[in-house]
Amino acid sequence: MSLFALKPILSAIEREIETHIRSRVPLTEEIAKYVLKSGGKRIRPLLFVISARLCGHETGLELKLSPIFEYLHVATLVHDDVIDHAHLRRGKLPAHVVWGNTIAILSGDFLLASALELAASSGILKMVEILAQTTSILAQGEILEIMKTNILELDEREYFEIITGKTAVLIAASCHLGAILARAKLEEQNALKSYGHNLGLAFQIIDDVLDYIGNEKEFGKPVGHDLKEGKITLPMIYALSKANSPEKEKVKQLFERRKEEDIFELINFVKEKKGHKMAFEKAQDFVKEALKAIEIFPASIYKDYLMEIADFVIRRRF
Amino acid sequence: MSLFALKPILSAIEREIETHIRSRVPLTEEIAKYVLKSGGKRIRPLLFVISARLCGHETGLELKLSPIFEYLHVATLVHDDVIDHAHLRRGKLPAHVVWGNTIAILSGDFLLASALELAASSGILKMVEILAQTTSILAQGEILEIMKTNILELDEREYFEIITGKTAVLIAASCHLGAILARAKLEEQNALKSYGHNLGLAFQIIDDVLDYIGNEKEFGKPVGHDLKEGKITLPMIYALSKANSPEKEKVKQLFERRKEEDIFELINFVKEKKGHKMAFEKAQDFVKEALKAIEIFPASIYKDYLMEIADFVIRRRF
Repeated sequence: MSLFALKPILSAIEREIETHIRSRVPLTEEIAKYVLKSGGKRIRPLLFVISARLCGHETGLELKLSPIFEYLHVATLVHDDVIDHAHLRRGKLPAHVVWGNTIAILSGDFLLASALELAASSGILKMVEILAQTTSILAQGEILEIMKTNILELDEREYFEIITGKTAVLIAASCHLGAILARAKLEEQNALKSYGHNLGLAFQIIDDVLDYIGNEKEFGKPVGHDLKEGKITLPMIYALSKANSPEKEKVKQLFERRKEEDIFELINFVKEKKGHKMAFEKAQDFVKEALKAIEIFPASIYKDYLMEIADFVIRRRF
Repeated sequence: MSLFALKPILSAIEREIETHIRSRVPLTEEIAKYVLKSGGKRIRPLLFVISARLCGHETGLELKLSPIFEYLHVATLVHDDVIDHAHLRRGKLPAHVVWGNTIAILSGDFLLASALELAASSGILKMVEILAQTTSILAQGEILEIMKTNILELDEREYFEIITGKTAVLIAASCHLGAILARAKLEEQNALKSYGHNLGLAFQIIDDVLDYIGNEKEFGKPVGHDLKEGKITLPMIYALSKANSPEKEKVKQLFERRKEEDIFELINFVKEKKGHKMAFEKAQDFVKEALKAIEIFPASIYKDYLMEIADFVIRRRF
């Protein structure tokens, strides 16, 4: 079996998103584009649908509600765009970016509202409650990330708090709410929530590792995007934990300056200390946890899908 | 009776907001400030509390839930800040504004989420549903306003669509949900919703009129802030409706250029055509509608409050 088998579900999700957005008041093209493009792999709605079906719910409602999770994801993406642009351009915003800002903020708000409206339409209060909590944790995670930008001394606990907010909490909610829609037993609800949480952590760690090792085979060089932005991630945290005082001092200087060649040296430092490998192993541990969590379910095609997706998270190189 | 009698309720609302925010995960000072300052008259939570009590609900829950309406209001304010800053500064953002942007967007999201979490805690799905709809209409109203910026030919229908979104819908929801919390009869729910809607429209029109006539006694000169930003409001729409072709052509030129002296001339044009007076009368009509809507309620101190507030909206000069 491969993830190719998921194509029909993904197409159905795509249709739901388009239908739902078009059923709403006429939106400007620009905003419709924001909503529909997103370049999304639609992984969150997919996990919601699979989780609901794994728990025996297959009425079509799981498809109808699935856009919720893409909307929330895209809402944070477009608000992130504003934030990142503002930082990257060091205080200079060309007119089209300003226009983009306006649209991004309002369409983010619109998407947040649409997600919660769609959730309320399910009639399941618990669903709205969890989504509102999720959104709140998401915003807090991003606030923490920004507060900790340019701080080399980020510790592992803070790192996990950040990535829980920015990635794991929404993936956990997607799986958890699939089980809730299916009115699954509490044990099953918790299993799927745990699967999603661990999968989300692994997903983000791999993302952060790829920022160090890049897709070396295809592109020939690493990225270092996070470092440039002043973001410390797990590979660096682990590398620093194995460094002596003079090494730490050196890293500090490089990080403070952060010119092109400094980034290069910092990446080499992490690789020498094998920080990226340690982080990768940590991600593997989380994937194992995710797989363990769903052991309670009997064999089924949907269980297979979840196992494949977990495996994919570790294998992916982009 | 005067609005001074509302002091105790306002203090109770203030305490609820502080308690609720502090009960949440520790927030940065900057964000707590955003949430708590807001310079708010707390008019929306006040209307919610009074509406609930008018319908016989006085358990304390109406106070506990009242921050919802301030959070939603402040969320839109802080997101507006970002938008306005970006526009006003014509593509140049000093670092502290950039920092402010980041915090504004995320704390706006956090506030939106907090409002919906608090609403979900009531256990009343209808409350969450209406709030999600309200948020969506709010965002759409603002999008429309931005789309129509710099367009002199804004018509009355579009103007009302914009101010319904940016002001009336949330005030209507505050009153409506007070009745829903009280499990009031549908007739009473609709009456309070209509009161809030008409009050909100009047409130925004007066705001827009004040931008033309200013507080002349105290400050000696009008403001013209909306015009500078390219926003057409009701006084101008009415003034233009009474202008002949050469006058319209002249206004068009002034509006396109919009230097300090052009703004001055545009304001004079509106005053000569009595556009501000016509708009003021329209606001009075809406206040009458608002008062008519609550006629169905028997006399009570809370009905008096609502009547006083409606009267205040027309009398206010700031």
